[in-house]
Amino acid sequence: MAVGLSDTLPTLHPVAGIRLGTAAAGIRYTGRDDLVLVELAEHTRTAAVFTRNAFRAAPVIVAQRHLAQARPRYLLINAGNANAGTGERGLEDALATCSLVASQRHCDVNRVLPFSTGVISEPLPLGRFHGGIAQAAAPLDAAAWPAAARAIMTTDTVPKAVSRRFSIAGKTVTITGMAKGSGMICPNMATMLAYLATDAALGPEVIAHCLREAVAVSFNSITVDGDTSTNDACVLMATGQSSAPPIDAVDSEACRQFVAVLTELCQALALAIVRDGEGATKFITIAVSGGRSREECRRVAYTVAHSPLVKTAFFASDPNWGRILAAVGRAGIEDLDVSDVSLFLDDVCIAVGGALAPAYTEAQGQAAMAREEITIGIRLGRGDASATIWTCDLSHDYVRINAEYRT
Amino acid sequence: MAVGLSDTLPTLHPVAGIRLGTAAAGIRYTGRDDLVLVELAEHTRTAAVFTRNAFRAAPVIVAQRHLAQARPRYLLINAGNANAGTGERGLEDALATCSLVASQRHCDVNRVLPFSTGVISEPLPLGRFHGGIAQAAAPLDAAAWPAAARAIMTTDTVPKAVSRRFSIAGKTVTITGMAKGSGMICPNMATMLAYLATDAALGPEVIAHCLREAVAVSFNSITVDGDTSTNDACVLMATGQSSAPPIDAVDSEACRQFVAVLTELCQALALAIVRDGEGATKFITIAVSGGRSREECRRVAYTVAHSPLVKTAFFASDPNWGRILAAVGRAGIEDLDVSDVSLFLDDVCIAVGGALAPAYTEAQGQAAMAREEITIGIRLGRGDASATIWTCDLSHDYVRINAEYRT
Repeated sequence: MAVGLSDTLPTLHPVAGIRLGTAAAGIRYTGRDDLVLVELAEHTRTAAVFTRNAFRAAPVIVAQRHLAQARPRYLLINAGNANAGTGERGLEDALATCSLVASQRHCDVNRVLPFSTGVISEPLPLGRFHGGIAQAAAPLDAAAWPAAARAIMTTDTVPKAVSRRFSIAGKTVTITGMAKGSGMICPNMATMLAYLATDAALGPEVIAHCLREAVAVSFNSITVDGDTSTNDACVLMATGQSSAPPIDAVDSEACRQFVAVLTELCQALALAIVRDGEGATKFITIAVSGGRSREECRRVAYTVAHSPLVKTAFFASDPNWGRILAAVGRAGIEDLDVSDVSLFLDDVCIAVGGALAPAYTEAQGQAAMAREEITIGIRLGRGDASATIWTCDLSHDYVRINAEYRT
Repeated sequence: MAVGLSDTLPTLHPVAGIRLGTAAAGIRYTGRDDLVLVELAEHTRTAAVFTRNAFRAAPVIVAQRHLAQARPRYLLINAGNANAGTGERGLEDALATCSLVASQRHCDVNRVLPFSTGVISEPLPLGRFHGGIAQAAAPLDAAAWPAAARAIMTTDTVPKAVSRRFSIAGKTVTITGMAKGSGMICPNMATMLAYLATDAALGPEVIAHCLREAVAVSFNSITVDGDTSTNDACVLMATGQSSAPPIDAVDSEACRQFVAVLTELCQALALAIVRDGEGATKFITIAVSGGRSREECRRVAYTVAHSPLVKTAFFASDPNWGRILAAVGRAGIEDLDVSDVSLFLDDVCIAVGGALAPAYTEAQGQAAMAREEITIGIRLGRGDASATIWTCDLSHDYVRINAEYRT
């Protein structure tokens, strides 16, 4: 079902200082891996952003606490159970999984970050973690990114991982990342789960800056269904094991270069999540320009992206542009003058001044709508700001998947 | 499909001073009425609230203008075409339909208010109005409310009209109202189309006050899909032809009495719209209490009501309460302490302090979910404010209806 994605992963370069292992722990699924252990070399610097949902899942709370206390040596990720809405017991369980890793791998418990994704409001099957962690740790391998990308999937239909190599000061730097997500996608800080690793050496300010910049225009600019998850997390790990010089200044050329590549990689992962959105048959880019601020452009874009009427029209390949204008009109933009607004489907101008463009024909609209990948262009005509977000349509399968997911 | 509604209308009392007529004008439908003419007796006082969508449909703009200029004598309502997103031509067409009524009925053009509902972004078939208006006016009848309630339907599966009689100062007063709406329902000021008529005599402040009070807790407290329409309008007409004394003070006992009955009547109509929501299989009341303000309670309620994951869980009769908590958590309530939040399905306490209630069993949750009508109770535990809104689930049929509506 994924729009323009294949099940085949691209080449994923190992990142010096990062080793991974997977296991079929039987947390929810049978016959597939569902547990990932990631080992970070000593001295690796880690930054992370987490969901802003007030109901943070237990592993998010524990991971945030541990991250404030120590430099992580291990990430433990399970699919199939989100350990969310589980109260005190959930916190104890998340901590217990960290203790299992700490005792098997001989490190302090607060150097382990736990991550969970899957069904919410069910207790974690703690008994399956002991053997699972041992199995995942048995062969930790720098080349295990593909297996890890598959092990973190839930309703995803394809794995999502991307790798880039570029040079800084003549030295090769690698960034490899993986992500999962398909439903409950409207990240507010980060998406469901994304892990980015580099062998570059990034200073403390720099690593936070790079992650913030890249996430803003990638994971924080997508939506499938408007439901911000309780478990969103995005982690950037910098091992410093490349021979490139350390990047310590946010305003350096090397930092700008790193941000550019990291952003492109995060966008590739974020867009893969949208393309694999639950039930998605269309991949939709919403580009809003001519706003007074980036915030108002994003507000218009998200209002359109979350409109069930717009989403079902795209599913039906129906150029029902009135629904798009109606969504723009209810976005709550102060003093919006509809006579300044124009609307495009790809390069076809559909509406000008709140009404049909004189040269527009239904055939043009239907030709654009027939495509699997469509850009909605909205020009507000009241300023210089712009914003782009990405989403998918609302199909029968979205309802089927989410009506059936627990049963 | 409508939840707990039947196709049979209740007794609709005529309102002295109001006559109605209908016609099969062939605006979009064949073999059914789709045009309504309502005649208001001379001296009838009228108040109305309209959509706050920035893209107001042409008839809304014309109706607002005319209402500011004169006391309406006629309302002209058509179903099948919303005359929205139609620019200058739409305004000319809406005005032209008023002129047709004015010339046939010998009144000033600005004493006619036009209303349209149906497909957006298509030009009004003006040629069908001349004969249609003549046909509708041929037998204007105070008893034609049932025919009118049917003639304004679009994707509605049942007509919606309610009537109440009560006494003020020992004299009988009647309120009769009708409404239509099923999709694109998240009224912001008023719902798609609602017409309320009374023979009470209401002063200018009083009529505006009564309408505002009643609409706030009825039409402005429902949502089907979060899409605020371009055509929403709610009109209250007071003919003053009952023998009850005029109500001229907002703080009078008679005014309070009138507001109470009008509110109950508006709620009956608004809830009928939700029960007939596109594809609805469940009728859901969301009651939020313990908030710091009514506004934050409404925000939580609407976030839950608009969550596709919550709506599909209800369609599946799945007590997936984690989805409800996740929606509460992303509602953007400042400093929300999840350990104060509790959650109920009808009288079953499901969650306390953000986690499963100790005594809760899945069987209890499933018993509640199996019902067609369910109340979600959310206690925020941080104040004394509360708010209630009404919504429905998201089913396969919602997608089908809206993917097929134009084709």
